[in-house]
Amino acid sequence: MDIMANVLLAAGCSPAMAHALDEVEAFVGISSALLVNMGTLSADWVAAKKLAARKAVELGKPWVLDLVGCGATPVRTASCLDLLACAPTVVRGNASEVIALAAAACRGASGNSGGVRGVDSTAASSDALEAAKLLASQHRCIVAVSGAVDYITDGTEVVAVRNGDVLLTLITAAGCSLTALIAAFLAAAPPGPGQQLLATAHALAVFGLAAEEGLKLVPRPGPGSLRVALLDMLHLMEKDAVLAGARIERL
Amino acid sequence: MDIMANVLLAAGCSPAMAHALDEVEAFVGISSALLVNMGTLSADWVAAKKLAARKAVELGKPWVLDLVGCGATPVRTASCLDLLACAPTVVRGNASEVIALAAAACRGASGNSGGVRGVDSTAASSDALEAAKLLASQHRCIVAVSGAVDYITDGTEVVAVRNGDVLLTLITAAGCSLTALIAAFLAAAPPGPGQQLLATAHALAVFGLAAEEGLKLVPRPGPGSLRVALLDMLHLMEKDAVLAGARIERL
Amino acid sequence: MDIMANVLLAAGCSPAMAHALDEVEAFVGISSALLVNMGTLSADWVAAKKLAARKAVELGKPWVLDLVGCGATPVRTASCLDLLACAPTVVRGNASEVIALAAAACRGASGNSGGVRGVDSTAASSDALEAAKLLASQHRCIVAVSGAVDYITDGTEVVAVRNGDVLLTLITAAGCSLTALIAAFLAAAPPGPGQQLLATAHALAVFGLAAEEGLKLVPRPGPGSLRVALLDMLHLMEKDAVLAGARIERL
Repeated sequence: MDIMANVLLAAGCSPAMAHALDEVEAFVGISSALLVNMGTLSADWVAAKKLAARKAVELGKPWVLDLVGCGATPVRTASCLDLLACAPTVVRGNASEVIALAAAACRGASGNSGGVRGVDSTAASSDALEAAKLLASQHRCIVAVSGAVDYITDGTEVVAVRNGDVLLTLITAAGCSLTALIAAFLAAAPPGPGQQLLATAHALAVFGLAAEEGLKLVPRPGPGSLRVALLDMLHLMEKDAVLAGARIERL
Repeated sequence: MDIMANVLLAAGCSPAMAHALDEVEAFVGISSALLVNMGTLSADWVAAKKLAARKAVELGKPWVLDLVGCGATPVRTASCLDLLACAPTVVRGNASEVIALAAAACRGASGNSGGVRGVDSTAASSDALEAAKLLASQHRCIVAVSGAVDYITDGTEVVAVRNGDVLLTLITAAGCSLTALIAAFLAAAPPGPGQQLLATAHALAVFGLAAEEGLKLVPRPGPGSLRVALLDMLHLMEKDAVLAGARIERL
Repeated sequence: MDIMANVLLAAGCSPAMAHALDEVEAFVGISSALLVNMGTLSADWVAAKKLAARKAVELGKPWVLDLVGCGATPVRTASCLDLLACAPTVVRGNASEVIALAAAACRGASGNSGGVRGVDSTAASSDALEAAKLLASQHRCIVAVSGAVDYITDGTEVVAVRNGDVLLTLITAAGCSLTALIAAFLAAAPPGPGQQLLATAHALAVFGLAAEEGLKLVPRPGPGSLRVALLDMLHLMEKDAVLAGARIERL
């Protein structure tokens, strides 16, 4: 939660983190977008996640589901399915998580793990493209698969984003922070067809680019320096640098 | 909690964080001061906060209430009022939080939000000065309003502190860490009238100064570097630098 | 948890953190080693810790117990005793924590605190050597006492590790992160007598050495820079540097 909140603050947003059952709905009421992260799965947290998601849908606010560790345990997969049924605007996971969710959505929450071991992916993002398209079509949402190349799809269109650095896989909650940024970009997206897909792709590009640009300033890059540089660069990056550096491609 | 604990360690203190109902009182027993932070509002955490606060009062130990997000949701405002009734030594909030608490204290916990949106303030600290004086007088405590200028009052005296940097608003838990430092300074304050007010002002000055001095060493300041530099400087800063750099003024 | 996970990622591991009662056993099932940290002692967390520990033993996987704050409160000492009864492979604590646990193991969980105040030690690691040997013999486990010199014992053999830097005492969860690294080294240890003792000593040496080497690159060392440098160096350190720099001695 710490790095997620700091990523949002560095990018100019105003994050608030809440999980108490009796205030999550009120927080959704004063928010521009909601992020539901599956990292912590205590029973009362899961109940609060559902309450918050339903409130967001009721109020017409965008909400994003982060599939942390989907497929790693049966409880985790089942909880992700429960939240998927609450109509997220965007679902974000790594390849293993998206494959596990699509498999579970097809045959119920039982079955094997789709290559998930813990919370890190054992598959390439392109391996999950068909699973992502299937999920997006069936659940009328946008699915973002992050990896060396990120893929974003609404079931029909597919956008690839080629920003980022492999060192991002060595800092915890990099994926979670990315999802938080997607929520922020959705909050700021103009209305209209395709705008949420584009906003999601832009969030992925900006996050990856901040890592790339940040690492250029570090004499001896490692995961500790990357965390610092990422936050600095999200704050310092000029719009021009973003426009010039984003590697977004419609497939 | 991570940055709060690191701020305290860097400043030479020995922090311990506990929220289990059956050990918070024992922890207060071995502590020199207590910090109660309203960030997490699960029912059992709130119960533990009250137990801890009452134990501190019973043992005559100073305790500090951090108003995180007071005014953002009805539950949050009501919980802050509950803790205010437990006789804190110092209450710390941003302008919006202090205004919301004062309004709620006057008319019960219902009513509007006093300009709170999430946990960031939408008001300047000077806007909250009258609310702070009112709270301090009515509840016989010290109220600290942090912002571009910090104000500390016991209801009669007002002290302004002009240290800090606007970049502090872009790192999460900066306010919370500041409150933790207030608790540490209270633990070390000599007895006598006005000493707790002064200790609170000194904590605010030292925290702000550590940020200022730290940023001087960073070639390209951003929120990531600030976190690192703040912790380094709290450890490295000499007493002389603090005395020379503190901008504290009695109003 | 944040710094622990980042230490493991930087060192090339794949950490997952879980505390929900209904998935901890499944997570142990897909893990190579388990770390049980006593930092958070809510009733449901303690129950989950025991479930996880028993599952690890059932599956023949190594597990490590971190004694955070043992001795600070009666609840904490009693919980540590409960977990000690679940047959950990390695127990790690600072001198005060190990002394408190040994004292409690001899006479039940009541009694005084063994010099624990909060979670920081008030004793030198050598003061705990006899307590460590006693615990190791009686519970057939390895006990690691961290401090200026680290001692690792199985009750018969004693190994001393002289890596590290005093600045590590000024960052929160440094001990916890070290314990996480012990779990990782146990996961990778070859079978055979003495190998787990050696793996534990290696983890302590590598962690300490990463701090030493990292600090060499920092112009003005403080706790903020140490956190960054430690993570960088765990990722960057070559095997040769580790072999050359480790100061491990059989006593």
